[in-house]
Amino acid sequence: MSEQFTNVKSVFRKRFSNLSSAITNRLWLNADTNYECDVLLTFPARIDDHVIIWFLEKFIQLQPDIRISIKYHFTTGVYGFYVTFTYERILKGADTLQLEKPIKQEFGGGYRIFSFDELEFYEGVENEEKFLSSQERQSIVFHLLYSIRIIENEIINRIKFKIDQSLIQRGLEKELIRQIIPLHNKEQLNYLREIWVWPKNIITPQPIEKIRQYFGVKIALYFCWLSCYTKALCLPALYGIYIWYYTGQSQELDDKLFIINSLLNIIWATGFLIFWRRRQAELAYQWNTLDMEQLEETRATYKGTLRRSPVTNKYEPYYPSWKRLLFRLFVTIPMLIINIVLVSILILIIIRFQSWIDRQLKVGRLPSLMSLTELLPKILLALVTTVFDDVYKYVCRWLTDRENYREQRVHDNQMIAKMFACACVNSYLSVFYIAFFTHKYIRLSDQLITIFVIKQFWDHIKEAIIPYIVSNTRLSVLIELSKKEQARYAERKDLNKKLKNILDQLNNSKQIKNINEISTENSFSSHDSIPSFETLSLSQAEIECLQPKWPDLYEDYLELVIQFGYIIFLSTLFPLAAFFSLLNNIVEIRADAFKLCMICQRPFSQRVKDIGHWQKIMEYMVIAAIIVNCIFCSIRGVFRRMLPDLPFAAEIFLLICIEHLLILICKIIRASIENVPYWVRVEKAKMEYRRREALTKLECNALHLKDNNTQANTT
Amino acid sequence: MSEQFTNVKSVFRKRFSNLSSAITNRLWLNADTNYECDVLLTFPARIDDHVIIWFLEKFIQLQPDIRISIKYHFTTGVYGFYVTFTYERILKGADTLQLEKPIKQEFGGGYRIFSFDELEFYEGVENEEKFLSSQERQSIVFHLLYSIRIIENEIINRIKFKIDQSLIQRGLEKELIRQIIPLHNKEQLNYLREIWVWPKNIITPQPIEKIRQYFGVKIALYFCWLSCYTKALCLPALYGIYIWYYTGQSQELDDKLFIINSLLNIIWATGFLIFWRRRQAELAYQWNTLDMEQLEETRATYKGTLRRSPVTNKYEPYYPSWKRLLFRLFVTIPMLIINIVLVSILILIIIRFQSWIDRQLKVGRLPSLMSLTELLPKILLALVTTVFDDVYKYVCRWLTDRENYREQRVHDNQMIAKMFACACVNSYLSVFYIAFFTHKYIRLSDQLITIFVIKQFWDHIKEAIIPYIVSNTRLSVLIELSKKEQARYAERKDLNKKLKNILDQLNNSKQIKNINEISTENSFSSHDSIPSFETLSLSQAEIECLQPKWPDLYEDYLELVIQFGYIIFLSTLFPLAAFFSLLNNIVEIRADAFKLCMICQRPFSQRVKDIGHWQKIMEYMVIAAIIVNCIFCSIRGVFRRMLPDLPFAAEIFLLICIEHLLILICKIIRASIENVPYWVRVEKAKMEYRRREALTKLECNALHLKDNNTQANTT
Repeated sequence: MSEQFTNVKSVFRKRFSNLSSAITNRLWLNADTNYECDVLLTFPARIDDHVIIWFLEKFIQLQPDIRISIKYHFTTGVYGFYVTFTYERILKGADTLQLEKPIKQEFGGGYRIFSFDELEFYEGVENEEKFLSSQERQSIVFHLLYSIRIIENEIINRIKFKIDQSLIQRGLEKELIRQIIPLHNKEQLNYLREIWVWPKNIITPQPIEKIRQYFGVKIALYFCWLSCYTKALCLPALYGIYIWYYTGQSQELDDKLFIINSLLNIIWATGFLIFWRRRQAELAYQWNTLDMEQLEETRATYKGTLRRSPVTNKYEPYYPSWKRLLFRLFVTIPMLIINIVLVSILILIIIRFQSWIDRQLKVGRLPSLMSLTELLPKILLALVTTVFDDVYKYVCRWLTDRENYREQRVHDNQMIAKMFACACVNSYLSVFYIAFFTHKYIRLSDQLITIFVIKQFWDHIKEAIIPYIVSNTRLSVLIELSKKEQARYAERKDLNKKLKNILDQLNNSKQIKNINEISTENSFSSHDSIPSFETLSLSQAEIECLQPKWPDLYEDYLELVIQFGYIIFLSTLFPLAAFFSLLNNIVEIRADAFKLCMICQRPFSQRVKDIGHWQKIMEYMVIAAIIVNCIFCSIRGVFRRMLPDLPFAAEIFLLICIEHLLILICKIIRASIENVPYWVRVEKAKMEYRRREALTKLECNALHLKDNNTQANTT
Repeated sequence: MSEQFTNVKSVFRKRFSNLSSAITNRLWLNADTNYECDVLLTFPARIDDHVIIWFLEKFIQLQPDIRISIKYHFTTGVYGFYVTFTYERILKGADTLQLEKPIKQEFGGGYRIFSFDELEFYEGVENEEKFLSSQERQSIVFHLLYSIRIIENEIINRIKFKIDQSLIQRGLEKELIRQIIPLHNKEQLNYLREIWVWPKNIITPQPIEKIRQYFGVKIALYFCWLSCYTKALCLPALYGIYIWYYTGQSQELDDKLFIINSLLNIIWATGFLIFWRRRQAELAYQWNTLDMEQLEETRATYKGTLRRSPVTNKYEPYYPSWKRLLFRLFVTIPMLIINIVLVSILILIIIRFQSWIDRQLKVGRLPSLMSLTELLPKILLALVTTVFDDVYKYVCRWLTDRENYREQRVHDNQMIAKMFACACVNSYLSVFYIAFFTHKYIRLSDQLITIFVIKQFWDHIKEAIIPYIVSNTRLSVLIELSKKEQARYAERKDLNKKLKNILDQLNNSKQIKNINEISTENSFSSHDSIPSFETLSLSQAEIECLQPKWPDLYEDYLELVIQFGYIIFLSTLFPLAAFFSLLNNIVEIRADAFKLCMICQRPFSQRVKDIGHWQKIMEYMVIAAIIVNCIFCSIRGVFRRMLPDLPFAAEIFLLICIEHLLILICKIIRASIENVPYWVRVEKAKMEYRRREALTKLECNALHLKDNNTQANTT
């Protein structure tokens, strides 16, 4: 039996040694045009030489399949490791990450989770350049780097590395490594910039498929959702304008419009959410993420003590859930409560302060100063909300990271829940307080206009324009500064030699040439002369190093979900809300694209099958909207005017009945429409069936072959 | 390639011919002790001879693997076909039905959906008597019988049989076939009767595992749920007694007890439902029904025109969903509404009538007649509810059957939803009307006591005692009558000969002996003499034919779910509700067991993974209970007495807030506890992992063998 296995292995090995040599002879089309690499790892500028050497040695020792090119970045004075792995190792990584890949027609076709041991079955696995897209390669390389674990306790630069810690993670944590970034593909990026960020027509559809191929499923799904939501907004924008036009003519008409508006909003929101849920299932099917839940990959930054997994019986990090529970009970919840209470108190104080100033101004006790005094509390409110916006985002990130979830999906959902709880208070409290308790509807309308026009406009500037200017300025400053680095370059001679030696040794010992190399660009390692200033032009990779990190999608979603809330909660007070949101979102699409393509580093791709808890949150918001609108009905006296003879208690009772009835109807509608469209279910069943058939065939073949073998042996 | 397949087939065939001959040589231990059969099919007594012959010929023609023994039932004058199939066909059926069976240790162990083409991998497949339990065999035989479809249009006895109709289904529909029943296993049944129906101690735990093996998962799950619910009832029974004891001492204490009782009820109900959801997942894991949803089997009674399936590309019956939608919109919903409205009106009229009589009695205008006059409306109410109880059950059954669902699970859920909607009105309307609108709490308590003591007691009699007496009486009458059948027996001689000829012919042509036979018991076919009266003793199978059909679990669940509702809705008015329910349910377990083991025919087993919509319904009932209790709080003035200075509107507002808060808390608790216990998730992941590993190994072997083969060919 063991001999048989050795046989099989040798076959695989032969095939792979051919592939490996192929790697070295060509450039990867999908990688950065200058370097045969997927991921760039940089060290801090002022780090000791021996740390870099130690890391290089560790990488080579712990993961011999690694391929490293080293380059010194003149402008910033940092060393960059341009990292990739052999194709064989990358394919194994694709197996671990459970990427879905197409099966050859003769084996049943369709998509299936990639398995390294079943290489034969996958379409185009021989074509190394095309089989995996650049973002898939990058995810795999990232995962492989992260899973390099230390095998004996060591101390470097006074930092302890304990057994089984992730080398990279610990390095990043203790700032021995500055960052790890996937590199852009200039050609594809330029295409996206042209078609997506600066289209000729602002309402051109987005190239979703291209986005998915370049940035991965998670980001593509966001833009899909955003475009879906924006299109859906046309409806409330239309009837919003209509209602806005007719509002204010007579009290009776206003009341009717109020009720119609509330109902239309709720119907629209329910419909949109159902539609999106079905669309999402379609996308998940098309992008092969529908059944990815079964064996989820461990998050790269998951920490824990090593133990034998009860499932696979292999060692894996483990963080006991009681610790997480304790942390959540005694740190997360108190901190969130403190945060929320603090914001609430501050906001309420400012609102009281506003009322006080208003009253003082009316009786003339305070000088108006060109209505500056009146504006003071408003500015204060804006300031507090903006400051706490950043504070709670930071707090939520920190808390969720500390809670240390194993799966990315759970991590995201927990983050979403926390952020939304805080953002809710921050965004809605002042508005609802004014609406429910002070009844100053004119002031409220003012505030809503401010939110919809000024705040959203300001957000674009804050998110896109300012970072762009900042990063550009920083870049030019850095180039100026880098001139001084030339002196420092001389000091680096020694290190360069050492690094080159290590790599040479490795290359010789393995008899593989040109794989691990000190880059000769900017010509420092080959002829050791100080390069002239002209050669100091920045490479694409160096620029990317200087760009800010891309801050996932939490804030983008949050902003839009809060906007969704304003529309369904408050558009009865401000019917144009949906219209302004529509305008904003058309710009938002391009602003977010701009952020991704022009400002930030390329993010590592993530695979998700839905937008996570946001869907649930929006569904709960619709329920909340029903309650809020019923309260408005009562507070604004809509009902009292319609049924003037009804006693107050009966009115409230009636409203509760209506509220409960609406919620019930909402739930029934939701429950009675399938989450997954019919054709997707059929396609899934088809796939499942084909797979079963193919498997049966395969097993029949195996049996037959065995049979033949025994026959051959007997004859 | 085709040659290879032929080879493989021949190997399988060889193996099976051995097995088949083995079948004929022994009796199946799991089948009825008298006949080698799994399922009994009987014809009506007065049916024409040629129909029976036609059916026999059809069976043999359309499904040659069938094995039939024919026996004439003297007592009832009907012919019985004792049916089974060859072991090979039954195993293929197990594949179609996707039964989960244990894998051999060397292939990874654990359970897996049975696949006929992978026979090798299953533990104990060689042992025909043990591999499938009697209920599994019966389900398979039932399924195979049902899937016999007619291949050309025919008319028999003026009944049209169209192409692709199910022979059995059409026969049953048009009453050419009387019934198809699985036969009891006397040994196992006696064991269950002893241990389960008549235990020495009424609180002995039920032998759930035995029940599952004998009656299948669905019934076992019901009894598990019932026992779980009964145990859970101890808690509210205890505090119910406590509260009942202290109620009535002072208004203040009563109010406090009222609030405590409501809260305790809601907490208990939420806790119980969460507990059950987790327990259910455990059971589903233990019984291997956890991941059975993927490819669900078509219901045996599913009708539709044949079309090529888009999934498997084979012909299958298809019923367009728009037809179902239309039926639901224009038949189901109107009929349910009519039913509900009718019951409501009748109940309200009776309640009004009661009030009128009460008033008349008070002023002395009506004679009391030993309080009979007062009782009249109560009796009327009981009568109306009882009658409509049967009416709506019949209507729901009919409607759901006509809606023609493909999957049993969907069918069950639709049935449950309909029955619950009707039962709700029938059971709760009078109580809630009295509670909310007439405020006669003493009358209400009376009614609740009636429900909990008399009605539940009566239900046991109605469900268990009466049917038992009826069926026993019927049996003795039939035996009396059967004496007259002796004359008729002479007329049957011809038919017997013909049937025997057909079977003999078949046996000879196939060179298989003793498989299809006219039973020689009661010795009519072998020596053609009229048996003496003494030999007319009833066989077990004949008795079973005379028993009533078992009416699935809908009503059993319904009764208990309605009871659950009474407890959480109304135990504030009648704190002993839970206690009486507890007493009732202890009897209920045995009564239902009695029904299964003593009165009804053995049911075909069904595989389910949960209790279906009942769980959801109970979850919604908890939400409803929160609302109902808040309303009671307001109506009974609990709040007004506690906070006497609060204006009425403010009180209602406060109550709404409390209500919404409670619902929110309930939802959060539910969402934050995992549906599936940790250990089950780990076990599932383990199984999945092992399966993957085994599959990889298998494929490696296949590759290796292929490799060897090519090597052998070249040398």
